[in-house]
Amino acid sequence: MESLYIVKIGGNIIDDEESLSSFLKKFASLPSKKILVHGGGKLATRLAEKMGVPQEMVDGRRITDAETLKIVTMVYAGYINKNIVAQLQALHCNALGITGADGNSILSHKREKAGIDYGFAGDIDQVNTVWLIQLLLNDSTPVFAPITHDGKNQLLNTNADTIAQEVAVALSTFFNVSLVYSFEKSGVLRDINNENSVIEKLQLEDYQGLKRSEKIFAGMIPKLDNAFRALSSGVHKVIIGRGQELDLLISGKSGTTITHE
Amino acid sequence: MESLYIVKIGGNIIDDEESLSSFLKKFASLPSKKILVHGGGKLATRLAEKMGVPQEMVDGRRITDAETLKIVTMVYAGYINKNIVAQLQALHCNALGITGADGNSILSHKREKAGIDYGFAGDIDQVNTVWLIQLLLNDSTPVFAPITHDGKNQLLNTNADTIAQEVAVALSTFFNVSLVYSFEKSGVLRDINNENSVIEKLQLEDYQGLKRSEKIFAGMIPKLDNAFRALSSGVHKVIIGRGQELDLLISGKSGTTITHE
Repeated sequence: MESLYIVKIGGNIIDDEESLSSFLKKFASLPSKKILVHGGGKLATRLAEKMGVPQEMVDGRRITDAETLKIVTMVYAGYINKNIVAQLQALHCNALGITGADGNSILSHKREKAGIDYGFAGDIDQVNTVWLIQLLLNDSTPVFAPITHDGKNQLLNTNADTIAQEVAVALSTFFNVSLVYSFEKSGVLRDINNENSVIEKLQLEDYQGLKRSEKIFAGMIPKLDNAFRALSSGVHKVIIGRGQELDLLISGKSGTTITHE
Repeated sequence: MESLYIVKIGGNIIDDEESLSSFLKKFASLPSKKILVHGGGKLATRLAEKMGVPQEMVDGRRITDAETLKIVTMVYAGYINKNIVAQLQALHCNALGITGADGNSILSHKREKAGIDYGFAGDIDQVNTVWLIQLLLNDSTPVFAPITHDGKNQLLNTNADTIAQEVAVALSTFFNVSLVYSFEKSGVLRDINNENSVIEKLQLEDYQGLKRSEKIFAGMIPKLDNAFRALSSGVHKVIIGRGQELDLLISGKSGTTITHE
């Protein structure tokens, strides 16, 4: 099967012009097929402040009321997405910026959880695999903004990590998928205060051992549980590290490479 | 050749939720291949006011400084474009929202004119015909926001009428293209104050006669000159009228239908 890299970047790269530009150069020069998924960053919060729209967070997730949905649609799908696309095009990477509404690429439903109203936040139901494969075979590089839709005219704010994971799983029947999570640390650390304690390779058995002996930073556990779930759903490899070192992450010279066994 | 409708809508539809929704229903149900091009509307001006960015107009065109480019990218390519896409998807029209940067679909250059600095305004150089044909053959409906790029990492604010015209001309070697300009009047009027004075059919010879005898509203002349230019470059038909009556415009029961001879 042909290789496909799905790379997710977050605020620590998006919010810094230099980091973003150096990351995009490395991303554009990946020789294989690729998809970029970007998150939000500080700009949406700053715009909300300017517009006097109060922001509320629950468990690290933004509560998306109607005004906030408008702001994140403008900032994520408009400003951030199109600036990334223009940069990639200048680097001769044929980027196509999309949300889950475009091409009906990701269908989701409004998150419902007893007691908490997340507002217009989406949980993913389905990825339009056929259309994404068509784009990739035509040498387009999809660039996803973290917005999806419910197919009934409702846009929904959607977690970028989850988009990357669901797209990776959906495309793994057709491609040999590596999923790269860019992140503010050099990789999964044995000691959260020591950037030199990166675990280079992590397999399920080791991970279970580390979890049992509590030798892994608690904050990393949901991310790693997700990574192993992606692997057991067909993704070939998950890599966690600094996006600015994308070339080194992919060659295994930096970051943590996670495989199933 | 297969029919292709390219429809341009502006502020008078975009700014009014009901008009937009009724227009989109008619657009979605067009049985042939189609492309939508939308302009801006008042939201960008309102957002600029909220953010304290002063707006300057010269000859009816917005002067696009760096902050204004940021705003129009957010509003046009983000909010307006993605809301139209979500509505069309709910109507089972497989919309794909793009700017000229996406898929490198429209290359332009920064407008230069002695004495006037338009800022980040783009004049079109080239339409990526092959890619647009691929999309249409895959039953996608491209929805253009009025933003293009120069291929060197600069997004440029671009007139939506011109985008519609250039895309129409470029695709007319492959499709039988009808170009529809939606507009706040019922069509080209003999008497600007009388909505019942619509000229139903207009051909080059009649138009030249009307121009000579000054029987046509001066404000319409640049629009009509452009329409005839599109026709002499291969576009089959130009229709001008109210987008809310799209079905009637297309069947020739409303608006002004302009053909070359």
